[in-house]
Amino acid sequence: MSKPYVVGIDIGGTNTVFGIVDARGVVIASSSIKTRKHSNINDYIDELHTELTKLIEANDAVDKIHGIGIGAPNANYYTGTIENHVNLPWPPPIPLAQLVSEKFGVPVSITNDANAAAIGEMTYGVARGLKDFIMITLGTGVGSGIVINGQLVYGHDGFAGELGHVIVKPNNGRLCGCGRSGCLEAYCSATGVARTAVEFLEARSTEPSLLRNMALEDITSKDVYDAAIAGDKLAKDVFDYTGKILGEALANFTVFSAPEAFVLFGGLAKSGDLLLKPLREAMEKNMIAIWKGKVKVLFSELKEADAAVLGASALGWEAKQPVTPSAIPVSPVASAPKA
Amino acid sequence: MSKPYVVGIDIGGTNTVFGIVDARGVVIASSSIKTRKHSNINDYIDELHTELTKLIEANDAVDKIHGIGIGAPNANYYTGTIENHVNLPWPPPIPLAQLVSEKFGVPVSITNDANAAAIGEMTYGVARGLKDFIMITLGTGVGSGIVINGQLVYGHDGFAGELGHVIVKPNNGRLCGCGRSGCLEAYCSATGVARTAVEFLEARSTEPSLLRNMALEDITSKDVYDAAIAGDKLAKDVFDYTGKILGEALANFTVFSAPEAFVLFGGLAKSGDLLLKPLREAMEKNMIAIWKGKVKVLFSELKEADAAVLGASALGWEAKQPVTPSAIPVSPVASAPKA
Repeated sequence: MSKPYVVGIDIGGTNTVFGIVDARGVVIASSSIKTRKHSNINDYIDELHTELTKLIEANDAVDKIHGIGIGAPNANYYTGTIENHVNLPWPPPIPLAQLVSEKFGVPVSITNDANAAAIGEMTYGVARGLKDFIMITLGTGVGSGIVINGQLVYGHDGFAGELGHVIVKPNNGRLCGCGRSGCLEAYCSATGVARTAVEFLEARSTEPSLLRNMALEDITSKDVYDAAIAGDKLAKDVFDYTGKILGEALANFTVFSAPEAFVLFGGLAKSGDLLLKPLREAMEKNMIAIWKGKVKVLFSELKEADAAVLGASALGWEAKQPVTPSAIPVSPVASAPKA
Repeated sequence: MSKPYVVGIDIGGTNTVFGIVDARGVVIASSSIKTRKHSNINDYIDELHTELTKLIEANDAVDKIHGIGIGAPNANYYTGTIENHVNLPWPPPIPLAQLVSEKFGVPVSITNDANAAAIGEMTYGVARGLKDFIMITLGTGVGSGIVINGQLVYGHDGFAGELGHVIVKPNNGRLCGCGRSGCLEAYCSATGVARTAVEFLEARSTEPSLLRNMALEDITSKDVYDAAIAGDKLAKDVFDYTGKILGEALANFTVFSAPEAFVLFGGLAKSGDLLLKPLREAMEKNMIAIWKGKVKVLFSELKEADAAVLGASALGWEAKQPVTPSAIPVSPVASAPKA
């Protein structure tokens, strides 16, 4: 009998969230540990094993886990390692897939969080049935997962799909966290929206705005959203500006892979028409004739609390048997050929 | 016995060139007809059939053609039709694959010319063994063929990979043939180079240049090349400008699919270091850290006279049996199972 569950693990800079997921995308149970508690990666894996095993036992899922999928920053699908990360307490490269697979004795696949989101959306969400789409995650940064012909694009080295770092302002662009200037992420992330608000407040110093009631450095994208919803002109202009840049970028992405749809996910995606209206307008205005009016812009249908675990878990279905000899499947019977 | 040859047909606005190609990529024989001689597509197909049959018979290749590959502007791999074209004398959509397949009784695959070039390069040229690369054709326009995980990217509708129409100048960009402004093609094609030369000559009206010996409207990219080779400062600046824009674009394309290499093809690609030096400099300067120094820029290794036919012919190896009932293979014996 094939095993009915997968485990999804989302490793963030603060929390590591994990859950048991069934084939229909229902999160049976979930829990979390602190990511930064242990300075030794083996201690972290030990705690993860202890807590996840409790969850598996409590939910009668022993010997029923098909595979484990992990979403983590800078995770490389090909090598199973985390490389070049900045937000985790362990020195890179971290052979994460191998460590987890050896500890649990089940196949493990890893990828970065935006790719995991794309796979989750394709497996359980609004992208079910789509073979060509691009997931854009609009959070603290801008991430992406590109699906072409039903397959996630990993590229030559496993790191493809960093659309947040397409340079959209070649001249005098804002400094980005990556060290370069003018990246999409510097404008269309939550932090980008806050930066735009500050720029507008400074440049239009005589214009009244609800945002003037707070210190510039305290303004968040949520504050800008609240002000815009309350009718604030300057705050609405911030969303127009953000949507226009993102829409132009999506038109440019379209000539690359001719996707059927873009799927937006993350905090900013919840701004609804405030962002979507200027985005669609700019996207269509900049779209080359053959794709005008043809590319959909969709919003993620996954519950945000579950999305990270769901996305990671979807990878668990395709996780392959680990190559390390110590990684024996928990239940060898499951590998026996069907009669 | 499997059939040892394929036929490649390159349909251009003026000439239709076709040739018989063997498995090692040798063009056994080739010939051509005028594309625009017949206003009726069936008359065109008839002449193509007559001339190609002569070539096949003269080279002892009867019953030895595995498939036919066709490269043509706006050709759609999925549907086998030519759509939205502007340079051919027949009303779209043209069911080209079906017409040719019915006439010759062999499987036919079609795609646009830049995609054909990419497949040719992967099958016979410098991209042999590469699973992830992007072909950039620098001719009258800028075309591209994107290969990811060994497969050409066609996208949702068959038209993916139009990187010549990425907008690289969002503000005050040049008008492009596609009707929009600021496309890569408006700068980095042969015509783009000539336009840049004219702009520079007008803006720097007191600066001497060899290009001032000719009328502005007569300047071609070849003239700019010759002047640059002769040491002309303004002409060299034109190549610096062109290479910089192309290099910035290649850095942006890298974040999409993380290719192992870009392969440059076409007239401008022959400018050598004049173009390559500023290109590489701008590409590395704009490259995000993880890919700095890692992405190759290669030049096509196919002879230019053969390249179009070779590229198209490579598609012939993967051409599938036509679905139309009238298309019976010329030699049914060849389809019989071995042994």
